[in-house]
Amino acid sequence: MTGEPLFDRIALIGLGLIGSSLARVIKRDRLARILVGCAQSQRTRETATRLAIVDEVTADPAGAAAGADLVIICTPMSAYEGIAKAIAPVLKPGAIVSDVGSVKRAAIAAIAPHLPAGVHLVPGHPLAGTEHSGPEAGFAALFEGRWTVLTPPAGTDPAAVEKVVALWRRAGSRVETMDADHHDHVLAITSHVPHLIAYTIVGTAVDLEEHTRAEVIKFAASGFRDFTRIAASDPVMWRDIFLTNRDAVLEMMGRLYEDLAVLQRAIRMGDGETLEKMFTRTREIRRGVVEAGQHVPPRAPGGNGETA
Amino acid sequence: MTGEPLFDRIALIGLGLIGSSLARVIKRDRLARILVGCAQSQRTRETATRLAIVDEVTADPAGAAAGADLVIICTPMSAYEGIAKAIAPVLKPGAIVSDVGSVKRAAIAAIAPHLPAGVHLVPGHPLAGTEHSGPEAGFAALFEGRWTVLTPPAGTDPAAVEKVVALWRRAGSRVETMDADHHDHVLAITSHVPHLIAYTIVGTAVDLEEHTRAEVIKFAASGFRDFTRIAASDPVMWRDIFLTNRDAVLEMMGRLYEDLAVLQRAIRMGDGETLEKMFTRTREIRRGVVEAGQHVPPRAPGGNGETA
Repeated sequence: MTGEPLFDRIALIGLGLIGSSLARVIKRDRLARILVGCAQSQRTRETATRLAIVDEVTADPAGAAAGADLVIICTPMSAYEGIAKAIAPVLKPGAIVSDVGSVKRAAIAAIAPHLPAGVHLVPGHPLAGTEHSGPEAGFAALFEGRWTVLTPPAGTDPAAVEKVVALWRRAGSRVETMDADHHDHVLAITSHVPHLIAYTIVGTAVDLEEHTRAEVIKFAASGFRDFTRIAASDPVMWRDIFLTNRDAVLEMMGRLYEDLAVLQRAIRMGDGETLEKMFTRTREIRRGVVEAGQHVPPRAPGGNGETA
Repeated sequence: MTGEPLFDRIALIGLGLIGSSLARVIKRDRLARILVGCAQSQRTRETATRLAIVDEVTADPAGAAAGADLVIICTPMSAYEGIAKAIAPVLKPGAIVSDVGSVKRAAIAAIAPHLPAGVHLVPGHPLAGTEHSGPEAGFAALFEGRWTVLTPPAGTDPAAVEKVVALWRRAGSRVETMDADHHDHVLAITSHVPHLIAYTIVGTAVDLEEHTRAEVIKFAASGFRDFTRIAASDPVMWRDIFLTNRDAVLEMMGRLYEDLAVLQRAIRMGDGETLEKMFTRTREIRRGVVEAGQHVPPRAPGGNGETA
């Protein structure tokens, strides 16, 4: 499998769940001659060194990006603009800058204006994750069978896009290219609004009287149990997602409210026919998801809590 | 393990996911000398016979219940009252009537008025299930490590309650007894409202423009993927749950709307501090759920779609 590395030097800015998983893939398949990791926190840098998932580690984004063929920003999106400004002066001509953020229009807005001419921006979003965060939570199989969506702005060099496609394919990912706005719209309904609801409903449970709250936890049934897992995802990452994909999320929330009002009225009026009709049509979508092969959540090989 | 059977004759009215799983437990551990199944649909009766999960099968609830020491109603709740009326005349003195429905106040209201004196009502609710329905979907391990909540009305014979407790313990279930109203309140937030939301959000996706809908299915990410599984649950069962637990569900929906409004406003105003605070506090609940051991969804041994 391993011949010439895909890249000479790759810099990963941010070594959380996604960054550290990607690091493990790159090391496993020797996709770079040198892999440099960058993390703000000393603890993360020490962990990355101990786990040997990068060749070098630094706290300085510019130091990591200098001389790199590929820089992938894997931090929360609120850090993007500062990183883009910091690395811009040291990027070598022909370098590719990518990212793994969940909102692509905002990613492009934060990065593109700062990049020098001759540098290629190929934003990406692997549709993969677990409720665990940090470099210990990463694993190389995280992207296997998952989609990675790339949203290169119109006019991006096709050869640069191809190199990023090749990297994600080596990670086991299926790759699709689309417009950034369209990506953000689709993700609002498939990911952002469900997370918002899960956070809310678990928060509602937190506010219950103490006795009831204890029993809610004790008897957490299907439904709530899934919601608590979703609502355990990284708070800073999700804060940034909702701040940056505001319009699409609020539009989808508006649609959701309308549909909820119909169901709520049916419950209040005792209208079983409407309820059954609504509950039947959603089964079709599940079948579609199962057929599309997106129904099996990725699992870490041990240590991810779900397998305990 | 197997000495004297717990019961001489058990009748299971309804052989769906729960009823057929319970049948498998009863046959496996020989908890009854004779196990009679009752199902309206000929296909279900044929399946139960082919799978040999009951000793006898009938379409007539009274025929199944006649002479039984224990009758467990495992149908959607809308059938309860008709079944209670049908079996009441043939119940033998000292017989126990139980059920597995998700709303206990309504279960008692539908059954209790019809039972003759000397018959014990011990309503039950195993907090277990999958998104699959029907007798083929059942499996004996469904209840292992799960809670079963019993809600015997005040004054119920403790010996009758103990016999039902013993049955569920043999199924591997942990058993707790509580007041029916309290059960319905706790389940509204842990199960009924999450299901309502999941049905709604998947329904919202169904209504998207066709191109977007296709991509929503294709790229179903964490969050939506879980919601599609929840929203694939049995429509008739869930219709009945919302019709019978109306007040608790509408009250919890009211609380949820208030909390959603706070988050939605924070998104609109770009208030990242509030978002991060809300997203951080929900992690605690997850920890509680994991510690309570309720975080691992039950899986059928093959054939349940999630393991494919």
